[in-house]
Amino acid sequence: MHDIVIKNGHIITSDGVFIADLAIDGETIAAMGLDLKGRRVIDASECYVLPGGVDPHVHLQMALAGRVSTDSFESGTVAAACGGTTTVIDFVEPKPGQSMLEALAQRQEEADGHVAIDYGLHMSIPTWHAAADERLAEVPASVDAGCATFKMYQAYDGMILDDVSLLRAMQAVGASGGRVVLHSETGPVLDLLRAQALEDGHIEPIWHERTRPARLEATAVHRASELAYQAECPLYVFHVGCTESVAEVVAAKVRDVEIHAETCPQYLLLTAHDHLDGPDGQLYVCAPPLRDHDDQDALWQALADGDLDVVSTDHCPWTRAEKDQPDFTQIPGGVPSIEARLSLVHHFGVNEGRLTPERWVEVCATNPARLMGLTRKGVLAPGYDADVVIFDPLRAKTISTDTLHEAADWTPYEGLTVEGWPRTVLSRGRVIVENERFMGALGEGRFVPRALES
Amino acid sequence: MHDIVIKNGHIITSDGVFIADLAIDGETIAAMGLDLKGRRVIDASECYVLPGGVDPHVHLQMALAGRVSTDSFESGTVAAACGGTTTVIDFVEPKPGQSMLEALAQRQEEADGHVAIDYGLHMSIPTWHAAADERLAEVPASVDAGCATFKMYQAYDGMILDDVSLLRAMQAVGASGGRVVLHSETGPVLDLLRAQALEDGHIEPIWHERTRPARLEATAVHRASELAYQAECPLYVFHVGCTESVAEVVAAKVRDVEIHAETCPQYLLLTAHDHLDGPDGQLYVCAPPLRDHDDQDALWQALADGDLDVVSTDHCPWTRAEKDQPDFTQIPGGVPSIEARLSLVHHFGVNEGRLTPERWVEVCATNPARLMGLTRKGVLAPGYDADVVIFDPLRAKTISTDTLHEAADWTPYEGLTVEGWPRTVLSRGRVIVENERFMGALGEGRFVPRALES
Amino acid sequence: MHDIVIKNGHIITSDGVFIADLAIDGETIAAMGLDLKGRRVIDASECYVLPGGVDPHVHLQMALAGRVSTDSFESGTVAAACGGTTTVIDFVEPKPGQSMLEALAQRQEEADGHVAIDYGLHMSIPTWHAAADERLAEVPASVDAGCATFKMYQAYDGMILDDVSLLRAMQAVGASGGRVVLHSETGPVLDLLRAQALEDGHIEPIWHERTRPARLEATAVHRASELAYQAECPLYVFHVGCTESVAEVVAAKVRDVEIHAETCPQYLLLTAHDHLDGPDGQLYVCAPPLRDHDDQDALWQALADGDLDVVSTDHCPWTRAEKDQPDFTQIPGGVPSIEARLSLVHHFGVNEGRLTPERWVEVCATNPARLMGLTRKGVLAPGYDADVVIFDPLRAKTISTDTLHEAADWTPYEGLTVEGWPRTVLSRGRVIVENERFMGALGEGRFVPRALES
Amino acid sequence: MHDIVIKNGHIITSDGVFIADLAIDGETIAAMGLDLKGRRVIDASECYVLPGGVDPHVHLQMALAGRVSTDSFESGTVAAACGGTTTVIDFVEPKPGQSMLEALAQRQEEADGHVAIDYGLHMSIPTWHAAADERLAEVPASVDAGCATFKMYQAYDGMILDDVSLLRAMQAVGASGGRVVLHSETGPVLDLLRAQALEDGHIEPIWHERTRPARLEATAVHRASELAYQAECPLYVFHVGCTESVAEVVAAKVRDVEIHAETCPQYLLLTAHDHLDGPDGQLYVCAPPLRDHDDQDALWQALADGDLDVVSTDHCPWTRAEKDQPDFTQIPGGVPSIEARLSLVHHFGVNEGRLTPERWVEVCATNPARLMGLTRKGVLAPGYDADVVIFDPLRAKTISTDTLHEAADWTPYEGLTVEGWPRTVLSRGRVIVENERFMGALGEGRFVPRALES
Repeated sequence: MHDIVIKNGHIITSDGVFIADLAIDGETIAAMGLDLKGRRVIDASECYVLPGGVDPHVHLQMALAGRVSTDSFESGTVAAACGGTTTVIDFVEPKPGQSMLEALAQRQEEADGHVAIDYGLHMSIPTWHAAADERLAEVPASVDAGCATFKMYQAYDGMILDDVSLLRAMQAVGASGGRVVLHSETGPVLDLLRAQALEDGHIEPIWHERTRPARLEATAVHRASELAYQAECPLYVFHVGCTESVAEVVAAKVRDVEIHAETCPQYLLLTAHDHLDGPDGQLYVCAPPLRDHDDQDALWQALADGDLDVVSTDHCPWTRAEKDQPDFTQIPGGVPSIEARLSLVHHFGVNEGRLTPERWVEVCATNPARLMGLTRKGVLAPGYDADVVIFDPLRAKTISTDTLHEAADWTPYEGLTVEGWPRTVLSRGRVIVENERFMGALGEGRFVPRALES
Repeated sequence: MHDIVIKNGHIITSDGVFIADLAIDGETIAAMGLDLKGRRVIDASECYVLPGGVDPHVHLQMALAGRVSTDSFESGTVAAACGGTTTVIDFVEPKPGQSMLEALAQRQEEADGHVAIDYGLHMSIPTWHAAADERLAEVPASVDAGCATFKMYQAYDGMILDDVSLLRAMQAVGASGGRVVLHSETGPVLDLLRAQALEDGHIEPIWHERTRPARLEATAVHRASELAYQAECPLYVFHVGCTESVAEVVAAKVRDVEIHAETCPQYLLLTAHDHLDGPDGQLYVCAPPLRDHDDQDALWQALADGDLDVVSTDHCPWTRAEKDQPDFTQIPGGVPSIEARLSLVHHFGVNEGRLTPERWVEVCATNPARLMGLTRKGVLAPGYDADVVIFDPLRAKTISTDTLHEAADWTPYEGLTVEGWPRTVLSRGRVIVENERFMGALGEGRFVPRALES
Repeated sequence: MHDIVIKNGHIITSDGVFIADLAIDGETIAAMGLDLKGRRVIDASECYVLPGGVDPHVHLQMALAGRVSTDSFESGTVAAACGGTTTVIDFVEPKPGQSMLEALAQRQEEADGHVAIDYGLHMSIPTWHAAADERLAEVPASVDAGCATFKMYQAYDGMILDDVSLLRAMQAVGASGGRVVLHSETGPVLDLLRAQALEDGHIEPIWHERTRPARLEATAVHRASELAYQAECPLYVFHVGCTESVAEVVAAKVRDVEIHAETCPQYLLLTAHDHLDGPDGQLYVCAPPLRDHDDQDALWQALADGDLDVVSTDHCPWTRAEKDQPDFTQIPGGVPSIEARLSLVHHFGVNEGRLTPERWVEVCATNPARLMGLTRKGVLAPGYDADVVIFDPLRAKTISTDTLHEAADWTPYEGLTVEGWPRTVLSRGRVIVENERFMGALGEGRFVPRALES
Repeated sequence: MHDIVIKNGHIITSDGVFIADLAIDGETIAAMGLDLKGRRVIDASECYVLPGGVDPHVHLQMALAGRVSTDSFESGTVAAACGGTTTVIDFVEPKPGQSMLEALAQRQEEADGHVAIDYGLHMSIPTWHAAADERLAEVPASVDAGCATFKMYQAYDGMILDDVSLLRAMQAVGASGGRVVLHSETGPVLDLLRAQALEDGHIEPIWHERTRPARLEATAVHRASELAYQAECPLYVFHVGCTESVAEVVAAKVRDVEIHAETCPQYLLLTAHDHLDGPDGQLYVCAPPLRDHDDQDALWQALADGDLDVVSTDHCPWTRAEKDQPDFTQIPGGVPSIEARLSLVHHFGVNEGRLTPERWVEVCATNPARLMGLTRKGVLAPGYDADVVIFDPLRAKTISTDTLHEAADWTPYEGLTVEGWPRTVLSRGRVIVENERFMGALGEGRFVPRALES
């Protein structure tokens, strides 16, 4: 007699979809089988049963230039939970003079007691940090503390690593068994193009895209992949949004670079022409920028073919007021999707025939768990954490700030009706969402130390 | 209380490897879980537990030019079972004047009552058959009878389909929801090159390879893939053995052809130079021919990358006496590996770091099951057939005709010691191999109707 | 004191364009230089001076199914001359039972005494001929007789060579130092598609294109290039008209095939949508068929990049009455452009910035002369035949059947005004066109034996 | 009656090789023709007659870190002349605070009166210069002064332009109708690898190559080509020496970058393994470094195919004593070949069947003249400068410091016997080398202003 049995669902694994029961004992999946018995039974007939979503790229209550991103650990993780995501990975950003472990402790303190679901943290290596040998020497300690993935930037004052710093940091991470997660753009060149556009009087949001040519973005991926090869360091490229960067990821694999990459809903579903160039263009500023329909086709195809591995969100919302700025260079970047991710990819991916259900689960849960070292997440199998989503593929849901649990006063998907939404969500055996209502408790989520496969 | 529980094995699925128990009730997998209880318990500690191997390309007691291939349904399926393969797919070859269903019934009659494991049958469409409209009209009936895969040849008198026949046959198969499985070589051109070589006095086995240039092989794959595209018919290319053909398969995918492909142990492990050109060269004649070490690297890489989907055997042995012929054109083609396939791919693939354990299982069981429409095979999950292999990865086994159950008086792998061998094998819940001894019964295997995913 | 001096022209060579005089003595170019003196002086100020055009692919008074192509040797060569072409290469088509040399003599008899300009002849190897060893044995004699290029077809009853015949014929040609010029389409497959279209009731001219998919055309190029590689025989692909075939030509070069290729004005300037699918669609039936605008871009780019070598015409006109047929399969194929070729390529190539003047001359004269073994043609240099065109790049000329010298009662370019037209044309030192008027004499042209570079 | 007639030579142009006479009046080619008459007649029977070589990349008496490169303008240009090169292009390197025109005047002063042949100058844009807007504003004046090509570096302290500086400088050059000539390596990353190698105790010359991975070199070409695309500035890549960089050049062309590239004899003929790793390894230090035999094959093929345009020398010799340094990072880089270039490319290119004679002349004379704006050089045609080489293709010459006119006390080609050497060389109508003896006068060479085609 198991604690909980989820009955008759269509269980999705990488091997396929099959009807069976899923049993949970305590925090753990105990069995998948036929006719399992439980003290509590949850019917999942006509529903998919899948591992809880893993979103490896979120920015909750992130401080940036005097502002804080709109979703707190509370609102952000509740929204994630309601959307079927049971693990998020956020960031530690050490301040000047601060050690990695100090910064980690501080960030954990901000999250612990506030999060509705489990979370991990990427360790950022900012400009000053990469320049300091004693700071790079902390990399192994960060790995030991469960932060085995290191965020680096090829753009942004204060964060940017030039090629030399990037190589040195990659060498340190590679030697410690970590993985780099990378914001890959050619920052300084873009800064020049942005300044020249402003000089020419261009202030509209669409210039955000025009001053970040896709071809230049691809050069950043190209050089980073070769530096990673030199450093013998695994590389994971964040938020790939254009055909040219996909091509560089594929080419790097052919050249034996250990490289993986993600995209995000905004790149799959929004375009520069339709959104950045529209009346509320400022809302859609994010970096890298939105691109075109051709790029969307390339991204979906790459997800289907295995050239891209993950759909994350890069969830980083700001309010309408914060987005309202005198020119495109001053708009804080980022768009929200932490809650709708699973459903968006299901609706536009599975329902449109672009992805199989298995692939949907791989890119939203299994792959990010594996690549980020969440060894007990992302898979439905005995012994894994009982993070489970019961997903009703026929549920029509209209996305709106009225119904979402995200804190921002807008969403790119306002008014969009998707078919398929999570009905019930379990986090380590606890039912935290039931019939689309959040039933969990803030603080029940935990920091999850992550360890990469050797 | 289950009928059988396999305890503590390292269960391999596409999602990963995890330690759990596997429960079987009757012929079916009942559960994967922790602490499962069974009337019979089989310990699998320190062993892999995987779905029974699926070999989609075997030729048992195949009549060819007055001879019969060495392994009967009895010896062949016992050998397969002992090597961890629980399903094979053989061929129906309609004779002139014979309908597909008559030929199918006749072939089933030859197998039923003799096979130790389950089997399926590909329906061959020979030259005369493709030319007859009323014969192509039987394709839907063959699909309905569980033969949804149709073997076609681009070579060999009596079997060859020229481009027009191939297109017509593919149109028929595509329209019926079937799949073509193809021997892809440029037969008539090779016949000319062979005749010219003989005229020039070349009789040695190595000329088998020299008169079948890899580049020409690739042109056959190229044209077949484009004909399949025109016909809107899924294509599966048999026994890809050279870099050039792999490249054509990859290129066809980029051109949106629905194409899959397999290779075989002989192409992964043997070479023209080392084997065809050696003292017993005649033994190693098979078509397409063995190639070089570079090709082997390309094949392994393609398996790892997903460019090739399956390792089958094309098991088609002949005795040393039958292989002894006056010139290379008269040697019956084919080599054996039905028993050692799983272990060879484990030893040279997994142990050498070329394939993960998951990928090993995918190419040897999961993928061939899925591509060939074996909807209850190839996966360990509740509700699937309880075809299970307990595989000891540390068992050192020396391959030899003395220990193999194959009937031929030679093996290409004589004296080779591999690390990893199946200890126990179950077919639909029956233990047919225990501690490497065959414990099953001839005739317990069944014909399995196959249905492709739409 | 030279016989003729052409003064002050912009002489075009592959090395560039420079202003100088060109001197002619007898039939031969005597000098290029400054301030040359001549008994006769022709002013070429503001004009290009270029070698006479070489059209390596024309069908004059070609017998086909009871009809004869519209232009006779008389009308066709006068039209060519007026358009700046001073050498054409037509075809010998041996009849069953007829030897190559007999057929050559017969074809020369038809032309000699009638041609206004020099001509060469490709030797066709029809189906029956390729099957007969004693006929292939004549290949060296044909080479010796100045027919070193051999036309082969991968389509058309009576002409088609299957892969084996093609390889045998290529072996014969390769061994004799010849070159194959190839009509590359997958004839039998197209015949099936055509029959199926007719069965479905499709009779309109556009079905000529729909039943000849570009992808299948490319497979013909692919296999032919690999057979040529096996045969060690140089290959020249006629009338490449689609992106896919260009790609195969390029890929073959990378694979070290000795391959060259041409396109024609109709593929550069007309499209299936605009012409085949229009009210006079039947006029535009030619094989391979017209394609799309994207293909035109690819062809121009390939000409500029050196991936295609030549613009020929495949001039093969029929009257409007002959083109008027009950269904697309019965329309005789071919369109005219023998007169306008140079000007069309100048207007749409040079004037549009797609080709340099040097490249224009290379593809219209220098390259076809070199590739076809016209060792004294296609170049302005001392010692070469004095075949010279004085071309006024600013002359606006409206193309029309009223002004053309072609015999057909229509032209695809009716009403089109091009900028640039030949003013004066010399053939072996004789002025045969002066101020756009034909001043030559029928019969002054000669058969030119051709010898390929070893 | 012409001043000079070169009789009966095999004149090489891009259109082919033909036997004719070449007439010279004053400094200019007057005619090519048959039976030309001259006051002075030079017999060229059995010899090639070609335009004087153009070496667009030499460093004569270049100051570097307190040393001066071994060849002065005197010795360097005499050596060039004796080797059949009649124009060299050297460099202007403005010092901090110095304007381009001042630096140009100073460099001309160093050369004028000392050079045996004509010369041009590339304008270098060093680090400090690129950072100064008023210096970049001088670009148009440099173009007007005949220095239309601008040398930039992606490596070396003092010279390196980071991506932003490179883009700004390219924008300035592109807007002025100039062309960038680029040393393309990832300087700062290499500096790190060099420092790390030294730390690890590696001082041998082979570490010069090991710390400059070809893959990283290619990333420099990649990014530079994309920056050039952004800047709409033509790019010419100096001294391409590895397969990876060739591939990036080819890929950039496909992406519509206006890019050209050269290689040098040392990359075609020497290898890291045979030379850098040998007993005199220090002599062979140059940057980019020597690579492997595979790279040589790729370079030759790229020259033949048109993927590379030019063979220059990057002639920059140092004495044995100067090359003798305590570790590989202190060795001054550069090797000599200014004298043997034409003969080396003839011997290993033409005689080995890798290049046609026409292509040899194109890459050694015609292309560098055209790409560098030498509008009167590099072609044999009336009106061009009478820079002419009479080259005896059968002359066996053993290369040695004893016979070369270069100043260095070593040559990489010591003891090598090549077949083919210049017999007689004319510079603007003056015979400056006769029967391999220098007959010219220092100071007769002139600065040649260069203007690029628009």
